[in-house]
Amino acid sequence: MSYDCDRHAKLLVDHCTDVKEGDMVVVKAPAVATPLTTAIYERLGERGAMPLKISIPSKPTRAFLRTIDNDALETPQHLFEVMKAADVIVQVGGSTNVAELSDLPAEDMQAFSKINKPLGDAQQDSRWVTTLYPASGNAQKAEMSTSAYQEFVHRAVNRDWAAQREFQAKLVDRLESAETVRIVAGDETDIRMRIDGNRIVNEYAERNMPGGEVYTAPIPDSVEGSVCFDKPVMAMGREIQNARLEFEDGEVIAHDADQNADVLASILGTDEGAKRLGELGIGMNRGIDRFTYNMLFDEKMGDTIHLAVGRSIEKSVRDCNDPNESAIHKDMIVDMSTDSRIELDGDVVQRNGTFVFEEEEDTNTPERTQ
Amino acid sequence: MSYDCDRHAKLLVDHCTDVKEGDMVVVKAPAVATPLTTAIYERLGERGAMPLKISIPSKPTRAFLRTIDNDALETPQHLFEVMKAADVIVQVGGSTNVAELSDLPAEDMQAFSKINKPLGDAQQDSRWVTTLYPASGNAQKAEMSTSAYQEFVHRAVNRDWAAQREFQAKLVDRLESAETVRIVAGDETDIRMRIDGNRIVNEYAERNMPGGEVYTAPIPDSVEGSVCFDKPVMAMGREIQNARLEFEDGEVIAHDADQNADVLASILGTDEGAKRLGELGIGMNRGIDRFTYNMLFDEKMGDTIHLAVGRSIEKSVRDCNDPNESAIHKDMIVDMSTDSRIELDGDVVQRNGTFVFEEEEDTNTPERTQ
Repeated sequence: MSYDCDRHAKLLVDHCTDVKEGDMVVVKAPAVATPLTTAIYERLGERGAMPLKISIPSKPTRAFLRTIDNDALETPQHLFEVMKAADVIVQVGGSTNVAELSDLPAEDMQAFSKINKPLGDAQQDSRWVTTLYPASGNAQKAEMSTSAYQEFVHRAVNRDWAAQREFQAKLVDRLESAETVRIVAGDETDIRMRIDGNRIVNEYAERNMPGGEVYTAPIPDSVEGSVCFDKPVMAMGREIQNARLEFEDGEVIAHDADQNADVLASILGTDEGAKRLGELGIGMNRGIDRFTYNMLFDEKMGDTIHLAVGRSIEKSVRDCNDPNESAIHKDMIVDMSTDSRIELDGDVVQRNGTFVFEEEEDTNTPERTQ
Repeated sequence: MSYDCDRHAKLLVDHCTDVKEGDMVVVKAPAVATPLTTAIYERLGERGAMPLKISIPSKPTRAFLRTIDNDALETPQHLFEVMKAADVIVQVGGSTNVAELSDLPAEDMQAFSKINKPLGDAQQDSRWVTTLYPASGNAQKAEMSTSAYQEFVHRAVNRDWAAQREFQAKLVDRLESAETVRIVAGDETDIRMRIDGNRIVNEYAERNMPGGEVYTAPIPDSVEGSVCFDKPVMAMGREIQNARLEFEDGEVIAHDADQNADVLASILGTDEGAKRLGELGIGMNRGIDRFTYNMLFDEKMGDTIHLAVGRSIEKSVRDCNDPNESAIHKDMIVDMSTDSRIELDGDVVQRNGTFVFEEEEDTNTPERTQ
């Protein structure tokens, strides 16, 4: 089953963003994604929508950020106007070298993120989706051949999203009526939190392609216990292995890691909110069967959960509850495939990666591998 | 003397558009121009200006124009907003295949040009420049190796523009006080026109890099005589050789060519204005010493003149005179290096490519080759 740009483009334009005649569509994509961009443009033509290609090119952007005085950085008004005028924004990642910005000082990247924040806010008023073109740099990061990686992306993307939505809805139902969640995995993870009626979001590939997760926001002060993230966490170009956090009254009171523990400490030290959880997510996309060092895919992986320290996602927090606020949002993943369980109000809802409702007769369980 | 992206970028950002701190700069460039785009971004960083990269990517645009119903085409409002918000626009051409849009029907290209017209108008309110990155497709079109073509572009671009401006100003002075221009070359060209106080534009690389021409608008009804354009004219992907026009009362009354005479007829048949002249230009960039099938360069070539049938350029027409109006503007070139002269009010101002003021003592004549 080889990667199919036309299928990918059709999903983005039809399923994710439902492009209509007359829509003004921004395609933000790198040059390496030209085969997918071409397929998207073809589909936009069929729909009668007008495309505009923009990009934040990595080599030029590096050169720019190395020379500009950070005090001179300001929100790019021309880009802001594009975002405001767009009905639809299709964001395509993909790189021949994912380390192209790796030698920029952290403060330059932070200053750049800060001026771009209003653009992200403006984007929320449009229909948008984020996806990835399987380029050689992404394949290399995943330690895969480009061909094998393209097949991997195809399996993750080319799913029956209506069936996936229905599958995820069963978990959404149970989470919506639950007050507490407990996650147990191996010897080192036993963590509990309240979710008390926060919104449960069914991400079946509307904003992310691939989608395939259900997420919500923990009540910040309610988190108790320990967790060991046994999948690597990438931060500042470095890989944290087996990050361990211990929570009391919602706050991290101890932390450690087998490698790059100082990077973990630096993340947690960003601000007050960085020591509290902003997200609980449960990966349910079984087309994603391996870790590839790309959060768009990793957090959707079947048989995993992820927790994020830092900012909670606005639409997952009900008005009556406080969101967790922070400058960061860092997802970290726990493998749930063996010796593990998720409990809702004391009842097991998933054991060793299998949900209890998968054993019910009427459940159309997505295949584990395709 | 090899091509130097940094030097090219510096000329674009400093000389052509005088970028200032806080300027919102649009860089419209293809992926193949990344080395130049990177150098431009670096220079913008030094200046404290904010870049945004956009493009009209050829393969995706072809796919889009092949699928969209031309009735559904409309001015892209998001792109219009970018143009309005830009203080500076740097347009970079360059292609790995200049024929990428060659199999689109002429009516699709015309419909696409039409919806994009308001964008060009919006651009006039900014400081803008058009240039070219010497890519393999452009080199191939010029029948040159990419390396030799890069050196050619470097020679055309990397000039002493202050000296060039001064050199051109001498011709501007003479044209400003002239009422009639006569151009004689070989046996087949003897054409006369009034310019009667229309504006004489000294293009020393403000809007075009390379620059290097002086141009004005003939009084449309005044053109009399014959001209043979002995440099090839490209139109609709075809090459017209030795296009010949005969004028009476400003209008083409006879036309012919050695090859593709039907294409020439089609151009002249576009509308009423397509049978009249909109521009008289005199190429003065002696860094450009050969014809390369790219009008940005060809029309600036030393020892040539060009005439355009169709639309006159707004700023070359004085309010009291009528502009020539047309949907087209087609430049065509006459070699003036041998057996030729330009007369102003009966006085020779150029003979066999050499201006009379070059023989004066104080003239700093740009070198013919570098």
